[in-house]
Amino acid sequence: MFLKPLLHDFRLALIQLHVSAVKSENLQRACGLVREASAKGAEVVALPECFNSPYGTQYFKEYAEKIPGESTQKLSEVAKECGIYLVGGSIPEEDGGKLYNTCAVFGPDGAMLAKHRKVHLFDINVPGKIQFRESETLSPGNSFSMFDTPYCKVGLGICYDIRFAEMAQVYGQKGCQLLIYPGAFNLTTGPAHWELLQRGRAVDNQVYIAAVSPARDEKASYVAWGHSTVVNP
Amino acid sequence: MFLKPLLHDFRLALIQLHVSAVKSENLQRACGLVREASAKGAEVVALPECFNSPYGTQYFKEYAEKIPGESTQKLSEVAKECGIYLVGGSIPEEDGGKLYNTCAVFGPDGAMLAKHRKVHLFDINVPGKIQFRESETLSPGNSFSMFDTPYCKVGLGICYDIRFAEMAQVYGQKGCQLLIYPGAFNLTTGPAHWELLQRGRAVDNQVYIAAVSPARDEKASYVAWGHSTVVNP
Repeated sequence: MFLKPLLHDFRLALIQLHVSAVKSENLQRACGLVREASAKGAEVVALPECFNSPYGTQYFKEYAEKIPGESTQKLSEVAKECGIYLVGGSIPEEDGGKLYNTCAVFGPDGAMLAKHRKVHLFDINVPGKIQFRESETLSPGNSFSMFDTPYCKVGLGICYDIRFAEMAQVYGQKGCQLLIYPGAFNLTTGPAHWELLQRGRAVDNQVYIAAVSPARDEKASYVAWGHSTVVNP
Repeated sequence: MFLKPLLHDFRLALIQLHVSAVKSENLQRACGLVREASAKGAEVVALPECFNSPYGTQYFKEYAEKIPGESTQKLSEVAKECGIYLVGGSIPEEDGGKLYNTCAVFGPDGAMLAKHRKVHLFDINVPGKIQFRESETLSPGNSFSMFDTPYCKVGLGICYDIRFAEMAQVYGQKGCQLLIYPGAFNLTTGPAHWELLQRGRAVDNQVYIAAVSPARDEKASYVAWGHSTVVNP
């Protein structure tokens, strides 16, 4: 197994931010932090899963948008303003009457480079700990999503997508050197799997792994694990 | 992902034993410990990689045997005597002028149930830390190796085989619920990968993983990591 060198060194920023119930606030906060990261030298910036909406099946429909739409328009503008690659975490997307958990990526010119719909919906039932069924309201994506940068090729997954080894293997085989997973793990799966899966994917596929979580908010109906992380191979 | 229940509970023993340069001593020690494990209720017993020979390319030819041969004959006998499933770690095997790193498995009636030749030879060069090229003297195996027990189906790998995710995935897809890896990691790869790979394989494939190392001997030319481990899914 050989590690391909990155084409260039670069600075990656993961934005672990508080997410409130007010979409406009979330967007403003996210864009402000993207500008701050860029000012500190980041060339690639990633937001967490569900950065503009509380995470929960009861919220997805209310917060859902078309892509392009209000939120992704703002992401495009701030990517262009800062001249960076912006991995737009994820937002609830509405398309053809279906809802998806979707990550849109924008380049330094503001163009959308990739759109990833979460493939593996998070349906879990750990008695006494956590029960959650994304599939109650969301539909799954069905494709791999990659984009090129001057630094390396990047593969995208959202949260539970990291649980599936094959996805990272395909990305690795297709030449990705960095996989970015916006993800809101919880206080059950977080301690069990968050670090293990990232380190496993990195070692097995000889790629860098970045996982970006919302900040932990003990008052939220779904408490995110936090612990945004970058792992080297 | 769903975990298939084991057919029956059973007791698994991993024998982490000292390996000297004297083959007859190693065999005697191994058989004695197998009897001890059986007396304590173990129904499946596993020995470590290279349990009858020092580990090193300079030793493999001298210690190599045919299979069946002296060492595997003793394993067969002790398996039958104890009425257990015995995963015979590995020994240097000679066949057709080639050398292999081979694990033979025996059932409670003494019959050989599987023979696994290490597929992924351990060629490593970490400057200043460790350099080793199994492929200088060994030839690789080219097959998967499984056997059935009344408790579950078992898949076999040897040491560096665990580094390759696909092998464990194939075993999982073929219905194995326990993967046993006799392995002599070292003081460089041990802390980096021994636990991580086992936990990753277990979680990714929802199987139990057992890895069996020789005891650490700081005076040996190759110092094994030890830390024999069982991981649940």
